[in-house]
Amino acid sequence: MGDVRVRKIFEAMFVLEEMREIFRNALPTGLNEEQERAFNEHLERLKQVIDELNEGKGVQLKFISDKIELRTREEEFININPIQPGGRLTVDARKALIAYGDGYSVCDYCLSPFKLERIRRPPIEEFHAELADFVGMDDVRVFPGARRAFQAVTSALIERGDVVLVSDIAHYTEFLAVEVAGGVVKEVPSGEHHVVTADAVAAKIEEVREENGKLPKLIMIEHFDYSFGNEHDVRGIGKVAKEYGIPFLYNGAYSVGLLPVNGKEICADFVVGSGHKGMASAAPSGILATTEEWAPVVFRGSEIKGDLTGRKFSAKEPELLGCTLMGATIVTMIASFPHVKERVRRWDEEVRKSNYFIDEFMRIEGCDVVSELPRKHTLSKVDTRGSFDRIARTHKRRGYFLSDELKRRGIVGEFAGSTKVWKLNTYGLSWDQIKYTADAFKEIASKYNLNVR
Amino acid sequence: MGDVRVRKIFEAMFVLEEMREIFRNALPTGLNEEQERAFNEHLERLKQVIDELNEGKGVQLKFISDKIELRTREEEFININPIQPGGRLTVDARKALIAYGDGYSVCDYCLSPFKLERIRRPPIEEFHAELADFVGMDDVRVFPGARRAFQAVTSALIERGDVVLVSDIAHYTEFLAVEVAGGVVKEVPSGEHHVVTADAVAAKIEEVREENGKLPKLIMIEHFDYSFGNEHDVRGIGKVAKEYGIPFLYNGAYSVGLLPVNGKEICADFVVGSGHKGMASAAPSGILATTEEWAPVVFRGSEIKGDLTGRKFSAKEPELLGCTLMGATIVTMIASFPHVKERVRRWDEEVRKSNYFIDEFMRIEGCDVVSELPRKHTLSKVDTRGSFDRIARTHKRRGYFLSDELKRRGIVGEFAGSTKVWKLNTYGLSWDQIKYTADAFKEIASKYNLNVR
Repeated sequence: MGDVRVRKIFEAMFVLEEMREIFRNALPTGLNEEQERAFNEHLERLKQVIDELNEGKGVQLKFISDKIELRTREEEFININPIQPGGRLTVDARKALIAYGDGYSVCDYCLSPFKLERIRRPPIEEFHAELADFVGMDDVRVFPGARRAFQAVTSALIERGDVVLVSDIAHYTEFLAVEVAGGVVKEVPSGEHHVVTADAVAAKIEEVREENGKLPKLIMIEHFDYSFGNEHDVRGIGKVAKEYGIPFLYNGAYSVGLLPVNGKEICADFVVGSGHKGMASAAPSGILATTEEWAPVVFRGSEIKGDLTGRKFSAKEPELLGCTLMGATIVTMIASFPHVKERVRRWDEEVRKSNYFIDEFMRIEGCDVVSELPRKHTLSKVDTRGSFDRIARTHKRRGYFLSDELKRRGIVGEFAGSTKVWKLNTYGLSWDQIKYTADAFKEIASKYNLNVR
Repeated sequence: MGDVRVRKIFEAMFVLEEMREIFRNALPTGLNEEQERAFNEHLERLKQVIDELNEGKGVQLKFISDKIELRTREEEFININPIQPGGRLTVDARKALIAYGDGYSVCDYCLSPFKLERIRRPPIEEFHAELADFVGMDDVRVFPGARRAFQAVTSALIERGDVVLVSDIAHYTEFLAVEVAGGVVKEVPSGEHHVVTADAVAAKIEEVREENGKLPKLIMIEHFDYSFGNEHDVRGIGKVAKEYGIPFLYNGAYSVGLLPVNGKEICADFVVGSGHKGMASAAPSGILATTEEWAPVVFRGSEIKGDLTGRKFSAKEPELLGCTLMGATIVTMIASFPHVKERVRRWDEEVRKSNYFIDEFMRIEGCDVVSELPRKHTLSKVDTRGSFDRIARTHKRRGYFLSDELKRRGIVGEFAGSTKVWKLNTYGLSWDQIKYTADAFKEIASKYNLNVR
């Protein structure tokens, strides 16, 4: 495994970064003699690396700097990590990142009213306009992660002691966003099938009303959960929320950017998405979209006033703390966006590949899937207690034997050492990669005398 | 102006990104025939770009993708933007960004207890240990920007109606962090010299006590402010805060990563820094460091509990919302850190260059400096109402004439169109660049018949 050319690509890019630095230290009038000499030395080095890239040989670069290893898992391996695939950058995002990595890089043309979402070069304003439309909502802001978007909503809506409904398989960040706002979570049971239904939400609302004499202040439910990757009845829940008049936050961390989402059709008051989880963007990034009704609440302008100066900042939005993503992160969101808009249309194919993989995986005796079947998502929870874990029990490497075997076949991203219940995600893999991965699991099973149907 | 080689460097890197993508779509066993063909085509293209880079000719790349322009202001220009210089990435940070741009890139080896600051590959844990030491505090966490760090502190300490002291030249994000926590700001006057003194803080504390019958809950003062770049008496203020027993947040957005900072020596309870403003890092990034006394308050574990499942997340920290910077941002902080540790030792030289520039600038008749003199920082506020603005009044391009003249000389980052009171920052410029920039201003002055002493 491991094509030396991958590392030579990095090496060439790194030499180019050093050449770029020469210009950064130069006068606008041009390089001086010493800088020209350094440039030429680097150019020679670059040519040598390109030769090695061509021939596919040479020393393999292992470290970026002292302590930071090169990361090649997307190039040299197939990555089935449960949380990483949707945040893999597109080529355009990687190019944009090279050009816009510096701190406040997108602020070159920040003009009055000095708001991130009003910047036109790069086209942040246009991106925001399209983004609201993309998730079927009226208005949108970017945030440093879905979790910060949850917090903006709980901070704006929840007073101490207020009840927020979440599911019993809600992500921990929903809990924390409620906690930090002083709220109380009440869990809607997802039942034995691990699917949250509208009826269960309605029943929990009634339970809260009975107990507290008032309705929950907010309902936060994920379209697909992080644990099983199961689909929850967000349309039904949206309807129930509307009937009760309770705002509904649609948690799209595992859907926005992966599949078509229309918040208003779902009767969502808030749509939250994650850039690094679903929109092929650098971390931390995310979105909060809302309706005309709620925008003046969560995106309200600042009202605080200095007692001496009378200073006010009404153009700044307190729940955002003003500007949010001023460089690398926003530019990857924008650069990936055309591809993200395109890829959500191919979601059915992603689901087909997911089901193909899972079907093949289950042909191994003792390999089971805990998520709903057929799969409606690319994230799945598998149970290998009856298969690989049986091997692990007597293997000298214990559960790591499976990691070793996978890695030997160029597959990474499984939970290292775990052979009991674990998660994988096939998002973005080509059919060739899907088949290769399924074959690898079956091959490992056969090697250890597990039956494969 | 504009060396074609700069754009050829970008072009070469972009071709390499496309080659990298081929490997991302391939099997771990190697490229197939079609992929090899694509690889070779790109290699040919790359060689051609390298030839053009060598010869310094060829078509100049203007756009990254459809709508995103190439950004070359750090390579082709001298950038005197007030907020950007401290966040310019180091070469190592740019290399790390190339390798770790993907969403959750630093989570490959996230093991129990599943906390960002405990990850060892890349060395995030080690970075945190050194970082606390770097600012002379006991414990530290990274945040998406200094503003989020302010919010973590106000959220943990401030109840509705509590008073927070800030200065009358405090950054708006301090105001917003207080507002979102339900607090009230009271401003300490910086006086005619725009310098916040310990006496002024003590007087304001007494004023608040008289008015409200109780002390302020928090004091937030910047070491250097965003407006004048003046130095405020943080040591004296730290002492006053300690005497009154009021926690003191040292706002180091314009100091951490630029000059040596020792929080405990200053008697600070919290030290806040900005990655994209002062630590040569991608946005949004920042730090919050604190003492053993306050760490259990702001970095406390979650206590919220699911009513059905009894789920708890005590390893997760609510004020952080769990993990904060999971990829590009943290990796740039880490990669730049050795250079940042080094560069703070050269702060005196930065101040010398700043004063040299300002002295030369003031040789132009009618050019004045509103910031304190001699300069103690590289950020300065200048007043050109008596010089360039006099020209602007009758020039057909109005204030843009100055921007035009500067740009023609390869200088950008001034507030475009402004010839009255505006800010500039010389941080990180070499002596050659400093002298060139000073000469440029004088040259423009002479061209328009302003006297230069």
